[in-house]
Order: sequence, then C-alpha cells, then structure tokens
Amino acid sequence: MTAVSVDDRYGFVKSVLEDYSSLAMETLREFLPDREPRRHLYDLLPLYPNRAGKGFRPGLCIASCRAHGGSSRNARRTAAALELLHNAFLVHDDVEDGSDYRRGGLTLHSEHGLGVAVNVGDAMNALSLRPLMANLTVVGPAVTLMIFTEIEHMIRQSVEGQAIELGWVRDNACDLSDADYLRMTLKKTCWYTCIHPCRLGALIATGDDSGLDRFNRFGYFMGAAFQIQDDLLNLVGDYARYGKEIGGDIREGKRTLILIHTLNESTDRERERFRSFLATPRSERSENDVAWVYRMMEKRRSFDYARQCARELAIAALAEFKVAFGGLPDSRDKRFLESIVLYMIERDL
Amino acid sequence: MTAVSVDDRYGFVKSVLEDYSSLAMETLREFLPDREPRRHLYDLLPLYPNRAGKGFRPGLCIASCRAHGGSSRNARRTAAALELLHNAFLVHDDVEDGSDYRRGGLTLHSEHGLGVAVNVGDAMNALSLRPLMANLTVVGPAVTLMIFTEIEHMIRQSVEGQAIELGWVRDNACDLSDADYLRMTLKKTCWYTCIHPCRLGALIATGDDSGLDRFNRFGYFMGAAFQIQDDLLNLVGDYARYGKEIGGDIREGKRTLILIHTLNESTDRERERFRSFLATPRSERSENDVAWVYRMMEKRRSFDYARQCARELAIAALAEFKVAFGGLPDSRDKRFLESIVLYMIERDL
Repeated sequence: MTAVSVDDRYGFVKSVLEDYSSLAMETLREFLPDREPRRHLYDLLPLYPNRAGKGFRPGLCIASCRAHGGSSRNARRTAAALELLHNAFLVHDDVEDGSDYRRGGLTLHSEHGLGVAVNVGDAMNALSLRPLMANLTVVGPAVTLMIFTEIEHMIRQSVEGQAIELGWVRDNACDLSDADYLRMTLKKTCWYTCIHPCRLGALIATGDDSGLDRFNRFGYFMGAAFQIQDDLLNLVGDYARYGKEIGGDIREGKRTLILIHTLNESTDRERERFRSFLATPRSERSENDVAWVYRMMEKRRSFDYARQCARELAIAALAEFKVAFGGLPDSRDKRFLESIVLYMIERDL
Repeated sequence: MTAVSVDDRYGFVKSVLEDYSSLAMETLREFLPDREPRRHLYDLLPLYPNRAGKGFRPGLCIASCRAHGGSSRNARRTAAALELLHNAFLVHDDVEDGSDYRRGGLTLHSEHGLGVAVNVGDAMNALSLRPLMANLTVVGPAVTLMIFTEIEHMIRQSVEGQAIELGWVRDNACDLSDADYLRMTLKKTCWYTCIHPCRLGALIATGDDSGLDRFNRFGYFMGAAFQIQDDLLNLVGDYARYGKEIGGDIREGKRTLILIHTLNESTDRERERFRSFLATPRSERSENDVAWVYRMMEKRRSFDYARQCARELAIAALAEFKVAFGGLPDSRDKRFLESIVLYMIERDL
C-alpha cells in the first residue's frame, strides 16, 4: 500500500483519470463521422460519452501502456475504442434493464425511443473498429490483430455476463450465492473494465501477447470491488453525484451482492415476499415495496457486508498488483495503477 | 441476359445458393461457442440462422471469389461472418421495428424478451470477429485487415440506413420521394446484401483492394430490386412461404416504395388519413385501417409500379454486370452471378 493520505491518493488518481480520459475522448471525436444522418444517429453517438464518465477503461489502458515503457500516443486509439465500446454497452444495457437515468440525464432510449437507441449502440460498436484499425500505423499489423483478439474476447465475456444477469431476472432467481455474483461480475464487468485495459496497454507497449494472463487476477479483484462499490452507490449514494436514480437497482430487480446477501439472511417468510416482489413486472413494483426491500437490506446489515467484501477484494487486488506490475521500474503510472485500487472503493461517484 | 428459361435459371440459382449457404452455415457453426451460458445466450444464436434464410450474402461472396479464381475454402469464413452479421442485424431490426414474426416463427424478442434479444444480437456481432480473424491463416494479415475495413464500412452503411428509416417512422415522414427510398435502401440493404459480398469475394481471390468500386453500381441496382421484391412479398406474398406476417409492413408503418407511391398518388384528403394512420401507435392501428391502406395501394396501382421499378433496376444491374464481372473468363459462378439478378425479382420467398 502507498504511504500517501486518502485525500492525496484521491486527488492523484482523479487527476490522472481526467488526463487520460480527456486524451481518449479527444481521439474518439476524431473517429466519429461528421455527416448525415445526424438527428437519429450521429448527433446521438456522443450523448453518453459527453456526460463525463469515470474514465477507468482508458485510464487503465494508457497507464498500463506507459508503465510498460510505451507512450500515450500509441495507446490512445485503443483507449478511445474501449471508451466507445463501453458507452455502446451502456446504451444497450439501459435498454435491456429498462433504466430511466444514466449519468445525470435520461437514458438514450427514454429520450429517443427504443429502436433508435439499439441502432445507436450498434453504430458505436461498429465505429470502434475504426480506431482499432488505425492502430496499424503505430503498432503494425501483427499487434493490431492481437488487439482484435483481445477485444473479441472482451466483448464475448461481457455479453456472457449480461446473459447471466438477464437470465436471473427472467428466471426470478432467488437462491444465488456470492460465488454466482462474483462469476457474473467477472464476466460482465471485470474483463472489460479492468483486465483487458491492463492487458491491452501492456500489449501495445511490448508487442508481446504472451504472459498477459498476469493481469487477470489483479483486474478481477479490482473490478469486483469496483462493481460492488457501484451497487452500493446506487443504493446509498447521492443522485446529484451518482447520476442514476437512487434505488433504481431495487426497482430493476438487479441481483447485487447486497440483495443476494439480504435474501440469504432472510427468513422463509421474508424470502417469499422477496420472491413475489421480484416476480412483479417492473412497472408495477410499488414505492412501498422498494422501501421495504431497502429496510430489509439495512436490517440484515447487507450494506456493511458488501462494503467489507469490496474492501477484502481491494486488498486482494493490491497483493496481485505485485504479480501484475511489480516487476516494472517505479513510475507515476505504476503508482497510479496501485493507487486506483483503493480509489475504486473510496470514490463516491 | 442468359438464354436459359426462367425455370432453369430459378433452379440453377437456387441450387448454387443452397450449396454456398450450406458451406457458410457449416463454417459458422464451427465458430459458435459450445459453452455456458446456453439458455439465455448461446442456444439462441443459431435460432435465426437455422430458420433457413435465402443465403444471398454468402452466395454472392463465395461466387464472386470463385469467379475471380479464388476458392470456396478461402471465402467461407468471410461468408460465415456475413451470415452472422446479417442475422444479428435481423434480430435488432425486429426489436427496432417491433416485428412479431421472422422466417415462419416468432421473432427472438417476442419469444425471449427484449433484453435477451438485444444481447443475443450483440453477441452475434461480436462473434463475427472470430471467422474474420481466422482469415489470417488463409489470406495473411494484409488481406485480413482489408476485409475488416470492408466490414466496418458495410456495418456503418447499414446502421445509417436503419437510422434514416427509423427517423422516417419517428418523424412520421409522409412526403418522401423514390430517390429518398433508393438512398435509404442503398444504405440499409444494398451494401451488406450485394455490394460488399461481391467486393469481399473479389478481394479474397485477388488480394487487391483497388478497383473494388466496380461492383458498387451492380450491387446497388440488384440490391434495390431485391428490396422492392421483398416489400412486395410482404404485401402480396404467401405467409407459408414468406414466413412473416403478410401486411406486417403496413402495420409497422414501413416506408416502402409501394407506400411512398400510394402517398404521392393520393388526394390531399386521403393523404391526411394516411398521416393520421401512420401517426397512430403501432399497437392501436386497426385491421380496418390496414385493409384500407392495402386497398389504396391497389387502387393507385402501386404494386404494379413497384414491380416495374424492380424490373428496371434488375435490367440496369444486368448492364452493370458487364462492368463488374464482364472481364472474367466464363465459369459456372460467373453465370450464377448474372442469373441471380433476375432471380431477385422472380423469387416468391
């Protein structure tokens, strides 16, 4: 662990994230077509990216590249593709979950209709190929193709994770374990948020795709800590900062670690009420029921439990940091990659 | 034009299409993961591909490759990717249009829910990268990357066409021209159904991406003829053969060449009724109104008009065939590529 204070770490991580995600956003804009059809397509592509995200994916990718001796310049196209793919994923995720808010505004489909939103997400996915192809000029054909292999694996893991989570809602799964949650999160979140950004940065810097698995456990632990913190913020956060409806996850019936803990700590009778609440179509779930679920989560100390899990995962990630990056010479980027682990669970947005 | 009879041509084209699309389907299956999560993801991927499609895209790609002296073996991975991308496009298109039937069965989202359907389409798009990457072993890195450039352009044109069409429905556009329709169809249909399959086949055979524009007009005219025939079959076809709800396009408010012609041939008063019909939410459009639109299409002879346009486009495509493939030595594949033009407007499914 670093010797700096929490506040110093927080400021340091935030400023690096801002730097690297600005670079990625600038690059991304170069690849967005300035042409028709605007109103129902190209004007909408920057909608989510412009609502400043946290920038974890470009941040990790560029920092990993630099920590391995590479340059921001060589990583920025891949970082831009990651950001675009992430935002495409959010657009479709919001459709799939029927979410109303994202980053302090209406979700794309709420504002522009379901069909347009699905198509905009598809366009963003397709356009991510452009910065990835442009890698050719900086890293050559062999590494460009290795990057495609990484990206294909990354997207596949995400859709698998998404399928697992959607399946839980469709099947009204009420008997899930922490292990189920962690497996889903590994697939849905960790690969694309943490593991592949680190792998890709190293690959771009070194041109070598052997040994990239050294980042997997680090990214898994950090990504799971990140996701649990995200789920906590959805329930106990501040809308103005968090930008989504507080408690929205309860209304969506999302199987968070918190809900899973509450379910497993409940009496049979309570579990029956949960089951029937979760079986109710989303639009018919009452404010009262949502409030009851929230109270039950408090009663079973599920927030504390989730916080504790996130902390333990972050500590495990710090141990794995040594495997992932320990061999590299000291650098600002290496320090950033270590510091971001605790930032993941200290952040309030 | 060929000297063979309509029946002979029909049988010949159909049998080549069956051959080449079987090869593409076989190849596609090699690239579909046999793993969890099955129920809400991988079991659903082959759903549309297994409901035998027409196989135009793999057919054109493989035939173009062979006509240029290449082999089926070298084209089959790209043909499989085209088929997968096409089916991904259909899954999302059905969501976007709110369609109920596809190829004689329920649409994926009607049967498995919206969220699962969007995610399955995303998975199919992502998985298309696998056969495209596998091109490396047969055509080398340079051509593999050229193929990616073609594919990126192809998907981008399709989402642009889709955005235009969705925009017309959202804006309740009632003053469209034939030129608007053709431009939308070029983007939404022609590039991915005809132009790029021909380009890709030639590219795989020759390794040369210069001069591929020679296929653009051929594929545009043929693709537009194909789409108009498709719209006609939706209205005057036989459900058992066509596999979609007859008249479904009227219910969806789809701006077909037929509807556009009827609108432009209508009196102001009739046009007002159209406008209000088309402004009604889809689920509230009555059978009576749909029947009225159908009768108006008959009254204005819009079916005949569309048939005539399709015929003229097909004849234009036959003239362009000489530019596209005329310089190649005679072969079964070259004859197929010429014969398929009239097949496009003679087919009844």
